[in-house]
Amino acid sequence: MKEIERHIAFGGVQSVYEHVSRATGTAMRFAVFVPPAPGPRPVLYWLSGLTCNEQNFVTKAGAQRVAAELGLVIVAPDTSPRGEGVADVEAWDMGQGAGFYVDATEAPWSRHFKMWTYVTQELPELVAATLPVDPARQGVSGHSMGGHGALVAGIRHPERFRSVSAFSPICEPSACPWGVKALGGYLGDDRRAWAEYDAAALVRSRGYRGALLVDQGLADGFLAEQLRPEALEEACEAAGVELALRRHEGYDHSYYFVATFIEDHLRFHAEVLDR
Amino acid sequence: MKEIERHIAFGGVQSVYEHVSRATGTAMRFAVFVPPAPGPRPVLYWLSGLTCNEQNFVTKAGAQRVAAELGLVIVAPDTSPRGEGVADVEAWDMGQGAGFYVDATEAPWSRHFKMWTYVTQELPELVAATLPVDPARQGVSGHSMGGHGALVAGIRHPERFRSVSAFSPICEPSACPWGVKALGGYLGDDRRAWAEYDAAALVRSRGYRGALLVDQGLADGFLAEQLRPEALEEACEAAGVELALRRHEGYDHSYYFVATFIEDHLRFHAEVLDR
Repeated sequence: MKEIERHIAFGGVQSVYEHVSRATGTAMRFAVFVPPAPGPRPVLYWLSGLTCNEQNFVTKAGAQRVAAELGLVIVAPDTSPRGEGVADVEAWDMGQGAGFYVDATEAPWSRHFKMWTYVTQELPELVAATLPVDPARQGVSGHSMGGHGALVAGIRHPERFRSVSAFSPICEPSACPWGVKALGGYLGDDRRAWAEYDAAALVRSRGYRGALLVDQGLADGFLAEQLRPEALEEACEAAGVELALRRHEGYDHSYYFVATFIEDHLRFHAEVLDR
Repeated sequence: MKEIERHIAFGGVQSVYEHVSRATGTAMRFAVFVPPAPGPRPVLYWLSGLTCNEQNFVTKAGAQRVAAELGLVIVAPDTSPRGEGVADVEAWDMGQGAGFYVDATEAPWSRHFKMWTYVTQELPELVAATLPVDPARQGVSGHSMGGHGALVAGIRHPERFRSVSAFSPICEPSACPWGVKALGGYLGDDRRAWAEYDAAALVRSRGYRGALLVDQGLADGFLAEQLRPEALEEACEAAGVELALRRHEGYDHSYYFVATFIEDHLRFHAEVLDR
């Protein structure tokens, strides 16, 4: 694991690391903010959206200020394997920059696109072994495709991720164009495989014991066709799952929206993880 | 003036406008944050550094949160004229993205590179005529090349810019490689012309009646050779100018440094402008 970038921010350290991933078979980068606080800290995994890499969240969300105050580590991985020899297509909603947090089973994706194993297992193990975090206090959040990843990771692995939130998540990928394309491409035609990566479907089939926090802008151009928060809302209501779905007039899909409400999410995670 | 980007952020509006500038003869872009507060607001002009455009500050500094709280408008222009037909060179420290906030007198730059007139006169007039600002309450700040621009604009036009601060400014461009190259290129060999764009020289020749706030990271790779805060410090001491020069252990030249201390600067400007 090699540190390739390092800055002091709000008294803490904002780094970027690169390592060779067993899961993806490629060099992967992730950003880490370590707050100026002693001892193993609770850690929030942030999963970014389509087209993003490990930089977007840490340069645009303004999360370090509150993370420094709360003593929270934040880990923000890249959104897919990358590089020569890694499968790709021209579209921005499939391939490099669009891993969708699944373990692909279909060629040519299945060789490197193992982002599910990477973000839920390999990366937390690596972080726990090398950085000052308390692996018993892990949370997960994310934006858009990463909000989908965060919800799915938290619902399927509540013992690994004790707090879960999302911004503008793709709530029901089996039923929206982005999700149908990505899940079909990465997992093939069997929709039973898709259901393991669909937050609304998972809530219907398994329920969830924790509390979910989801923020959604009402001026988000992707809201109606791609994000479908109402599907998650209905599933949670039917399953008795505690969901705080906050709809915000005027806000769009950008990081200005994330920046505006990230403080609420960090305080939510810190509160759950400190219990 | 055309709005080409618009987002809600922290209850306010973050926009980008484009207009044809009389000063530069080109289409210029500037970003504006308008806080959710009634009536004409005090306005801070933010001047960015080498290679930047109107986006860097508004996406990376996290200033909107405190600007919304304080009711401060922030205007962040591009750093030079751009486009086909505008002079340029391959270097990143000269030409497009590197206007140095001067009115160039040397060919080929003199045709479009009139950033001094643009940021100190044309842009404030346009903003005052079209946006909810109080032109009697204008401040100026900036980073690196933009810190230089802010200091020079504030010292030469204290009636236009009542509050002045800077991050990691180029304090004595006549005596550093970036400055010698840019001032020589844009203004020619006569160093008397350079002195009008040199903060340390201006303090020596004119003094300054207000208070200057300057933050500088001590792990900034450009500190010793390019920035020379000690020259500004000596000039202010000799001239009896009130300078708060804060040196910060560990911080570098990045926007992580700006983000960490921008709140202090916004509160400083709001306090001076509300007097």
